[in-house]
Amino acid sequence: MASRIKVIIAGALGKMGEEAARAVKNDEELELIGRADSRARKQSGHGATGEIGLVIDNDLDHLLKKVKPDVMIDFTNPQAVYNNVTTALQHGINCVVGTTGLNDIELRQLEKMALDNEVAVAIIPNFAIGAVLMMKMAQEAARYFPDVEIIETHHNQKIDAPSGTALKTAEMIMASNPRHPGPNRDTVKLAGVRGGDMDGIRIHSVRLPGFVAHQEVIFGGVGQSLTIRHDSYDRVGFMPGVVMTVKKIMGLKGLIYGLEQIM
Amino acid sequence: MASRIKVIIAGALGKMGEEAARAVKNDEELELIGRADSRARKQSGHGATGEIGLVIDNDLDHLLKKVKPDVMIDFTNPQAVYNNVTTALQHGINCVVGTTGLNDIELRQLEKMALDNEVAVAIIPNFAIGAVLMMKMAQEAARYFPDVEIIETHHNQKIDAPSGTALKTAEMIMASNPRHPGPNRDTVKLAGVRGGDMDGIRIHSVRLPGFVAHQEVIFGGVGQSLTIRHDSYDRVGFMPGVVMTVKKIMGLKGLIYGLEQIM
Amino acid sequence: MASRIKVIIAGALGKMGEEAARAVKNDEELELIGRADSRARKQSGHGATGEIGLVIDNDLDHLLKKVKPDVMIDFTNPQAVYNNVTTALQHGINCVVGTTGLNDIELRQLEKMALDNEVAVAIIPNFAIGAVLMMKMAQEAARYFPDVEIIETHHNQKIDAPSGTALKTAEMIMASNPRHPGPNRDTVKLAGVRGGDMDGIRIHSVRLPGFVAHQEVIFGGVGQSLTIRHDSYDRVGFMPGVVMTVKKIMGLKGLIYGLEQIM
Amino acid sequence: MASRIKVIIAGALGKMGEEAARAVKNDEELELIGRADSRARKQSGHGATGEIGLVIDNDLDHLLKKVKPDVMIDFTNPQAVYNNVTTALQHGINCVVGTTGLNDIELRQLEKMALDNEVAVAIIPNFAIGAVLMMKMAQEAARYFPDVEIIETHHNQKIDAPSGTALKTAEMIMASNPRHPGPNRDTVKLAGVRGGDMDGIRIHSVRLPGFVAHQEVIFGGVGQSLTIRHDSYDRVGFMPGVVMTVKKIMGLKGLIYGLEQIM
Repeated sequence: MASRIKVIIAGALGKMGEEAARAVKNDEELELIGRADSRARKQSGHGATGEIGLVIDNDLDHLLKKVKPDVMIDFTNPQAVYNNVTTALQHGINCVVGTTGLNDIELRQLEKMALDNEVAVAIIPNFAIGAVLMMKMAQEAARYFPDVEIIETHHNQKIDAPSGTALKTAEMIMASNPRHPGPNRDTVKLAGVRGGDMDGIRIHSVRLPGFVAHQEVIFGGVGQSLTIRHDSYDRVGFMPGVVMTVKKIMGLKGLIYGLEQIM
Repeated sequence: MASRIKVIIAGALGKMGEEAARAVKNDEELELIGRADSRARKQSGHGATGEIGLVIDNDLDHLLKKVKPDVMIDFTNPQAVYNNVTTALQHGINCVVGTTGLNDIELRQLEKMALDNEVAVAIIPNFAIGAVLMMKMAQEAARYFPDVEIIETHHNQKIDAPSGTALKTAEMIMASNPRHPGPNRDTVKLAGVRGGDMDGIRIHSVRLPGFVAHQEVIFGGVGQSLTIRHDSYDRVGFMPGVVMTVKKIMGLKGLIYGLEQIM
Repeated sequence: MASRIKVIIAGALGKMGEEAARAVKNDEELELIGRADSRARKQSGHGATGEIGLVIDNDLDHLLKKVKPDVMIDFTNPQAVYNNVTTALQHGINCVVGTTGLNDIELRQLEKMALDNEVAVAIIPNFAIGAVLMMKMAQEAARYFPDVEIIETHHNQKIDAPSGTALKTAEMIMASNPRHPGPNRDTVKLAGVRGGDMDGIRIHSVRLPGFVAHQEVIFGGVGQSLTIRHDSYDRVGFMPGVVMTVKKIMGLKGLIYGLEQIM
Repeated sequence: MASRIKVIIAGALGKMGEEAARAVKNDEELELIGRADSRARKQSGHGATGEIGLVIDNDLDHLLKKVKPDVMIDFTNPQAVYNNVTTALQHGINCVVGTTGLNDIELRQLEKMALDNEVAVAIIPNFAIGAVLMMKMAQEAARYFPDVEIIETHHNQKIDAPSGTALKTAEMIMASNPRHPGPNRDTVKLAGVRGGDMDGIRIHSVRLPGFVAHQEVIFGGVGQSLTIRHDSYDRVGFMPGVVMTVKKIMGLKGLIYGLEQIM
């Protein structure tokens, strides 16, 4: 076997960081060589931690003086992510970033820094391969079916509507086919449902206990309809997308934005 | 075989009237003995009409002087229905009415007239047995699941929203369980989707070409969800409800309102 | 407030036992006063355990000498359940049993024992209120729609097919309407899919990773269809059924079999 | 406006031929200049026929001596199609063929004849754009999700199972990703459901009254699922695919097989 890709994880104590560590450990092309989290106890490196079996360092810089990874996975927080990524890029390490909160200026700076160091930085808002496929398929179908509505269903603790995935889907559909039906002319007998209308693409937001994260994109044509549906049941569903990004980033340079860029 | 139930149809030239004639003819417990439609050509009774094979009279009174039906089915129009039904009830004929437009005062008068003549009048807004079952099931499920949303999907030529079936479903759910979640407190990123909120029950109205008439009632509970869906593909789907009503009305007196009363 | 219903849990260290403890603690009409599990460490009652905060006794008899519950919930195992329930019934304690493995003779004995002690024993194979509603609804719909197929979808680790819920649903449909279409006469171009045919009711068994436990009952009629769907996402979805049974059992005597008996 | 594409229809008296005539007439880039059907009454060209307004010739050769179309649409029958298409190709007319029954040898001959005459012949087994999109999407998704099952639902008059679309979908998935799970090892409690297993891809065939033609392709992955669904409600749904093919064939040469070749 060729040598494995060496990986470290920043934000290792979070739920996504733990899942990512497990996924890296279980993939035979990858090797987990370090974990960092600022919340880890101040300790100097003795004793393995849980099933994953690597001490969690509480300082990324400190970790990077000890190990030489090919890729850093960042699942930290909006406050920490920019510094983490610049540090890693300056060490010539590719970065796979699932943390939100980077603005456009920061993205441009990270892109330049990646190119200067001849590595890549992948910013991935949604690691669910199925959700990204749904969006790509919706974009393709919109070329043939101008009439479309979106129904997204989430648990009732979700605090915003419509969901980010639904808005992104509508944007991608608009980019592919901007000709959508005009304003409603129907008789409204009741109003005030949750959801919105983006330039003619209607998005319905269902919020009910029991559900996790689901979306349907429904295209209607004369005599037929085409529906694309994605269901997320568990955050473990994001891990194949994380692993795929770690593998694909090895041959790339500069900025990758969104899983769809590498699918 | 016992003697068959004798049936006439008013509004025989409409689409529903034609389907009803076909359904009556094909049921071995029923016998079609007359058809009337004010749009029929002025003619005095010679020559059979089409596959169904009965001359269409252009005057209901005239028809009732010739034949003695047990039941009249009315699929006429809001202007004609009240006169048709009073005429039939006074002849001691049970009436099955699929025509809309009768107001509450008229309903009370028809009820009294039916009782006086010892027959029954059934006013049925929706003959789709499946749709009525869906509403009854939703009412039952609401006793256990307070959280519910409705998605109704129709072709894009439908001019009102939400659909009558969706509003009726929400009313039946309210009657069974009035405790529904309070107002939205979520962050609205986009507004203006088609649909409405009835005392906490959200109804989403999808309008797309290709669809006919469809509804989903979705109940969410912790760790589970329950969905009841009805799809109408063709008006022929109303006919089993028409035939069932004709048979059940024979033993009844007074007013029946809605198919759920006899299921 | 009236005094609360006192509850103990047998099998407290299992996943269902832990969820049940949490559910009882969180319901204001119930009071958790004891937990037992033969796997608990031999200890004599000092020290609270975890978030739930009650020492787990390793012997049910011992626990029943200390506390006087109204209801025992049993989520143990087929070897232990019969002895546990007889012990509790002899103490005059109502029993809510989620454990499988009791045979018909044992059920008859437990029924007699419950009646002799003027309490009740509820044997509940499926505590998911939504699944039981689905089965009841399917039974009702079958009176109007003889044509029906079932699609059940589970994760790919499930080792039997069709699922117990699907078989129970088909039995309930048969009891309500035994007239189902005869054998296939179609041209078979490919065979060997997973699922079965129970006296004309076809059950399709889908096994795919990612899914949890889902079932659709699809009724087709001329021009329309009616679909009832239940989705289970998490075992916590069984708890409302457990809590409901604990509350309803208080006024009952003898044997209750199946959640549908008390809905 | 540029000159319109001149179209004739062979098999004009069939249901598909009539729909096609209507679709061509209603498209402003196309012009319907002739119709032929061997079942037409022997008549020599006087009198317009129905809403479409063109006499139907009972002989294709005769029609081709009178008019010079750019494209012939063939919706005839397996016995007539080969002769019709060779006749048209020899006149230098592009052919769009929805008729089944051509074998591989005939396809090769038609391809050569088209190339010799510098025109194109498009053989299209399924004109439903949505169904073809579904198959293409399924092929793409299979690259990421090896676990897949297909559920196809048709009216109970359909005489073969699984449907041609389901078999074609499974073939396209196999071509994209041949690694599918091995044989069942589960405990079978009931057998004999309708459907089949193609090299690990399971196809479930549901047959119920009320339905028309529907298919779901369900991909399951850890923690997520992706479903692509197509519903056909009416043969008019094939017409956008017919019109699209007529327009795209104008710039092509040789044989096109399947709508996916020009999408």
